[in-house]
Amino acid sequence: MDLHLELGGDGSLRARCEHALRVAVRHLPVGTRLPPTRGLAAELGVSRGVIVEAYAQLAAEGYLLTRRGGGTFVAGGEPHANAGLIGQSPAKPAIAAPAAGEGGRGDTPGATQDVRARAPRFDLRPALPALDGAFRPAWGRALNRVLRATPDARLGYPDPRGEPELREVLAASLARRRGVLASADEVVVTGGLGPSLPFVWRLLAARGVKRVAIEDPCWPRLVATLERAGLEPVPTPVDEHGLATHALEDVGAVFVTPAHQYPTGAVLDPARRARLIAWARERGAFVFEDDYDAEFRYDRQPVGSLQGLAPDVVIYGGSTSKTLAPGLRLGWLVLPKGIRADTPAPPPVLDQLALADLITRGDFDRHLRHHRRLYQQRRQALLAALAARLPDHAITGAAAGLHAVLHVATDAHAARARAAEHGVALDAIDGRLIVGYANLPESQAPAAVEALAQALQK
Amino acid sequence: MDLHLELGGDGSLRARCEHALRVAVRHLPVGTRLPPTRGLAAELGVSRGVIVEAYAQLAAEGYLLTRRGGGTFVAGGEPHANAGLIGQSPAKPAIAAPAAGEGGRGDTPGATQDVRARAPRFDLRPALPALDGAFRPAWGRALNRVLRATPDARLGYPDPRGEPELREVLAASLARRRGVLASADEVVVTGGLGPSLPFVWRLLAARGVKRVAIEDPCWPRLVATLERAGLEPVPTPVDEHGLATHALEDVGAVFVTPAHQYPTGAVLDPARRARLIAWARERGAFVFEDDYDAEFRYDRQPVGSLQGLAPDVVIYGGSTSKTLAPGLRLGWLVLPKGIRADTPAPPPVLDQLALADLITRGDFDRHLRHHRRLYQQRRQALLAALAARLPDHAITGAAAGLHAVLHVATDAHAARARAAEHGVALDAIDGRLIVGYANLPESQAPAAVEALAQALQK
Repeated sequence: MDLHLELGGDGSLRARCEHALRVAVRHLPVGTRLPPTRGLAAELGVSRGVIVEAYAQLAAEGYLLTRRGGGTFVAGGEPHANAGLIGQSPAKPAIAAPAAGEGGRGDTPGATQDVRARAPRFDLRPALPALDGAFRPAWGRALNRVLRATPDARLGYPDPRGEPELREVLAASLARRRGVLASADEVVVTGGLGPSLPFVWRLLAARGVKRVAIEDPCWPRLVATLERAGLEPVPTPVDEHGLATHALEDVGAVFVTPAHQYPTGAVLDPARRARLIAWARERGAFVFEDDYDAEFRYDRQPVGSLQGLAPDVVIYGGSTSKTLAPGLRLGWLVLPKGIRADTPAPPPVLDQLALADLITRGDFDRHLRHHRRLYQQRRQALLAALAARLPDHAITGAAAGLHAVLHVATDAHAARARAAEHGVALDAIDGRLIVGYANLPESQAPAAVEALAQALQK
Repeated sequence: MDLHLELGGDGSLRARCEHALRVAVRHLPVGTRLPPTRGLAAELGVSRGVIVEAYAQLAAEGYLLTRRGGGTFVAGGEPHANAGLIGQSPAKPAIAAPAAGEGGRGDTPGATQDVRARAPRFDLRPALPALDGAFRPAWGRALNRVLRATPDARLGYPDPRGEPELREVLAASLARRRGVLASADEVVVTGGLGPSLPFVWRLLAARGVKRVAIEDPCWPRLVATLERAGLEPVPTPVDEHGLATHALEDVGAVFVTPAHQYPTGAVLDPARRARLIAWARERGAFVFEDDYDAEFRYDRQPVGSLQGLAPDVVIYGGSTSKTLAPGLRLGWLVLPKGIRADTPAPPPVLDQLALADLITRGDFDRHLRHHRRLYQQRRQALLAALAARLPDHAITGAAAGLHAVLHVATDAHAARARAAEHGVALDAIDGRLIVGYANLPESQAPAAVEALAQALQK
């Protein structure tokens, strides 16, 4: 038989021969006898040794069989048909245009598809902070300082609970900003809140928890993460004072967003905070405090964490996804002293050290202050535009976080779909639209509200 | 009562008052009545409004109760005693001295403690590549290019299977270097092999797998990852031709290191490769190919991946932990077309794009070529020193990877412990020491072997 090999561009002659042979062999029927090495070498203009080695290599890999009496044959197996990939040149270095993100809080099932199909004119999905890159200069400086200063030996396997410097800095910073009561020993670094939930559910399941109360309404994906971990989610009502703690059923843990309920925007009131903690202590239950956007409160100081009141029963979770950018994939848990566990997946060492550097130098706090003002202005612009164009629609929730809650008379999910058609991406729960404003510059608020109003009129 | 507040240094006057108050309240008995706002304000030299607001804030957080008739009291609860942390100044920016890494392949349970206690003179743990920082200039350039070029919108939530550019580049690069047969659609980016195993086990369990054959001996942590996922590990013998495929029992999947068995160093021979694939196809079983160090082969071309022969049954896993540095926490899986899944935790977007950039520009291949030469020299130096000082001890395993296998007549685990006392960190399995050489400069090989020999003589 004739074997037409195309010697690609990369690597040594020998490596290129092997490649070409591998590609060719994938298209040949099992048992096909390969041409003698001498003939193939002559045809390709390479030394026979190269071909002998290529045959031996593919025999070692299982593509070819060499019979003792002589002769080399295509070995058995049913390789896929897409062999064309082999030898393909690497992709271009260019960085592609942005794809619509997904995976964050506020990701209603099905919402992503709409958004991904074409980029929305107004991206009001509540999961996103301002993707304005404002933190990038400071982040770049922190990364470069860390790249220069970190000893080589630190780039071995990371500390299984997170780099000690970052845990120290987080303990101090969370104490200062959120009233969290923890030493570095209780802090575990994560790749964000979402990825750490399966890990938290496993910790709880290992302690006998079977049912977990969740706020109703809540982040839609929460239910799936619990079910996948074999835990039963128990929806518990939310009103204007947050989770209805008096309605808690027989559960081993509670998932709660006390500083700013997601999505209703309610703040858990003091009496309920106290009742929740007393309830948990009484029955040996756990409280998971999702402190996702508590940095942003516009009418007063942010309410301190529940964890600071009851570090013995509260598991506290946070991340940089709402303050810096979800793409950084950096978060943390604070565990009660009785629970000691390694993170399921420590983030890259350099990123951890860069975040520690960013916080220590005050750049993180400066970024927060700047964005608190920015979001407050964007929130006011959105509310003003809504009051002018949709005066009959109530707006509820605290002056906090990255989203407002707009009440609609029609089916909110249908309204969300129509809004998407009008170029406005947002989320919906029963009777309400969840409108993120972090990515809506003040000047665009009237146009975004106009598009939304037209969608609602249909 | 008198309340002696210490106003710390950071933040607004109001925030500092709140802090000081929170710290103080944590030390007071429940029900204690706080001083009137007017008196406290006068004592501290601040306006009364500041104290009123601080009391209101702590009431909202649940620390204080305000009675209608007047008076503010410490609320119930049993806060922890380590309240001193609050108000503590943030940690120093300095990057601490290296901690002994852990978590990698070759981590014998108990080995880490010895090593961590004091840094070993010779770190011959087999999990580690050369921690010489050789890739850092190129990595820094890639990161900085990506920092500059990546659009802001890309820093939202990452693609749940990994950034498309990196998946494209990995598909092409793995095809070229490892004969992997996949399009970007089958590639899933991970945070390293270890963190992705629970995810792989879940995928398999969801497909009815209950028992998984593992190589005996194998990476010690493998057993625990399987058991934690509710799967039964079934040890299967390994000889000089790799996994004894004829000894495979009734299992739904096999975990195998075909290019360079860990830890024995055997290479799975061609007949067994074919038999393993035929066996898996016949019974609808899966093969997990852990391709952890296959880039490094010193006597011939690396044996191509098993996945390239049977992409329909093989799940392929790799990472940059043995080629660049474990601290980068970047890896990948290649899934059969029938299995489509999101990664449990996508790495940071910028790191993913930096790796794509590094590979595309050829820096990754250059690094591999350089380190292949370096490790070959280090391996030769180690073997020469062993032959000179410990001539009676056999060395087995292919000329590949980052470790050699030294046979000892005494109890290998006891020998490992004695070696640790002599400043030599390495791993052990029955009758053998696993000696990593990636971090052992040629010039230090005789001294390291001398220390080891003294430990063995005891």
